[in-house]
Amino acid sequence: MASRPPPDGARKRERRLGSTLGEFGRIARYFAPLAAGMPGAAGLKDDVATLAVPPGEMLVAKTDTIVDTVHLLGDETPQLIARKALRVNLSDLACKGARPIGYLLTLSLPASVDDAWVKAFAGGLAADQKEFGIGLLGGDSVSTPGPLTVTVAMLGAASAVARRADARAGDDVYVSGTIGDAALGLLALRGKLKGLPARARKFLIDRYRLPQPRIAAGRALRGIVHAAMDVSDGLVGDLGHIANHSGLTATIRWHDVPLSPAARQALAGAGAGAAALRDAVMGGGDDYELLFTAPPNARPRISAAARAAGLPLTRIGTMSAGKGVRVVDEGGRDVTPKVGGYRHA
Amino acid sequence: MASRPPPDGARKRERRLGSTLGEFGRIARYFAPLAAGMPGAAGLKDDVATLAVPPGEMLVAKTDTIVDTVHLLGDETPQLIARKALRVNLSDLACKGARPIGYLLTLSLPASVDDAWVKAFAGGLAADQKEFGIGLLGGDSVSTPGPLTVTVAMLGAASAVARRADARAGDDVYVSGTIGDAALGLLALRGKLKGLPARARKFLIDRYRLPQPRIAAGRALRGIVHAAMDVSDGLVGDLGHIANHSGLTATIRWHDVPLSPAARQALAGAGAGAAALRDAVMGGGDDYELLFTAPPNARPRISAAARAAGLPLTRIGTMSAGKGVRVVDEGGRDVTPKVGGYRHA
Repeated sequence: MASRPPPDGARKRERRLGSTLGEFGRIARYFAPLAAGMPGAAGLKDDVATLAVPPGEMLVAKTDTIVDTVHLLGDETPQLIARKALRVNLSDLACKGARPIGYLLTLSLPASVDDAWVKAFAGGLAADQKEFGIGLLGGDSVSTPGPLTVTVAMLGAASAVARRADARAGDDVYVSGTIGDAALGLLALRGKLKGLPARARKFLIDRYRLPQPRIAAGRALRGIVHAAMDVSDGLVGDLGHIANHSGLTATIRWHDVPLSPAARQALAGAGAGAAALRDAVMGGGDDYELLFTAPPNARPRISAAARAAGLPLTRIGTMSAGKGVRVVDEGGRDVTPKVGGYRHA
Repeated sequence: MASRPPPDGARKRERRLGSTLGEFGRIARYFAPLAAGMPGAAGLKDDVATLAVPPGEMLVAKTDTIVDTVHLLGDETPQLIARKALRVNLSDLACKGARPIGYLLTLSLPASVDDAWVKAFAGGLAADQKEFGIGLLGGDSVSTPGPLTVTVAMLGAASAVARRADARAGDDVYVSGTIGDAALGLLALRGKLKGLPARARKFLIDRYRLPQPRIAAGRALRGIVHAAMDVSDGLVGDLGHIANHSGLTATIRWHDVPLSPAARQALAGAGAGAAALRDAVMGGGDDYELLFTAPPNARPRISAAARAAGLPLTRIGTMSAGKGVRVVDEGGRDVTPKVGGYRHA
């Protein structure tokens, strides 16, 4: 982990950082312990990190960035920001059935960040390192006149990965867990869903705040699925990527999309606004659930994988010749959201 | 390469970006071609990148960030920023004798960045991809209310790496190329060194602006060197890391430190300011030359490596029992700079 020298003009800025430790002290105190289990990190005291990729496996890498005021609401704790930064990347490895190993961390820190903040942030990293069996490999820490920016490059290994383009006509479409909780949680955080009981609100908000990467389920599905990705931009938009890259159409049965009890409560209480909430469930993002396709003859193995991982894997649709994504309700009516994920607005 | 959806509040910001293509259009047009030679990049259309690490080798990784107004002077072209972002990382792989393969790129773009800027930036990446035989593996592109921030995570492979802590008592200390050009170039950019001929000024400024990662020399030195790193924070400060982590002292002979003709001109013309310039040469950063130690019996092999790589490798000092770094002149006087690299101020 380096702290590269800025030109002289920036040195003054660096000294204004709310740190009594300085960058090197911070790295030694708060980050070096996070690298203790990674021999290739060399205690964050070297120019490069190394990682042994087991024979027969390849490196799997993903990088994702969180910018304060762009990707954060502003009330997140340092611990939560740290965990979210790791988890959005872990989710991408999960959907590919990869085993996460370690990560590179880049912090762009504004002057307002003090040592207490860094300590709490490192605590969040430590908690998730333990939960996911990963370690810090290296990184960079710089000062910025802009907002806090956290970039994680997650590294792992897999013998093969399921690509978005690998769906075949006749495949079933599956999702893990429940869909739409995070989108509804974001609405709740914005003061919508006022009629919803506090417990359901809290559940949805928690689902928005802290993704649950489905590592175990992804691992259990290795060799079974055709196409796979995670739902981060919204179910319809993301399935659109699989359909598009595979040269197929996807049809989702709305009544088969798995909803949490809290999401069902929200929809049931929405009255005339139910259609808008349904669109939010299918079009909103941040689910971080697995989305994959598999041939019908894989159904027994997928049931077994779900049991092994302790996570519902629900069949919600099919892939066939054509293009785009269509959602139908129980009566066969087209209920495709007008607006998919943000990417497709 | 992903463009993750920000919360709604940020969508307005995203739309203000000076882009008629949008993030996806930009990725398809300017960045996907940079990934063409990397099958594991999946055309930047998937959640993860993969990389095969050859049997017997391990992954070598390094990430480094450039923040506008902190690490940039403000007059750099997009091409130059792109190349510098790659090269500061390539230099770290070079000093370890690693072979660079590909990289993850994270761009935090302010609204002022338009498509022409992105196109030129991608052109800089393309030029250096060709020069160093690397390709784009994946990345992330986000909008920011802050300054342009470019993070590269460079990935490569090596069968072993020389750590900073691997120096032994009795080792010679070597550097590649010439030292101090970049520090003097930065002084020239700030209006110092006014008496220096234009050609020498230009040489020094170019050395500051565009690092030359010493990949070939690093490869030629594999298995020969003990400790190795690159000189990025200043010769004395960086050699201090090797001394410190190896539990030794380093003695540099100032009269053996290789200087370019332009640097010699600057020092010769400095009159009473020569000592300050000497300190800048040894304490300033951004050389991006190799700094390594090797046993005396390796001298013939190091000469051969220098010839093979077409780059001077100059013996400038020795490692011995003790601590810290000391610089002596031809008369044996202590001329250790008062201030080493920024890290040690």
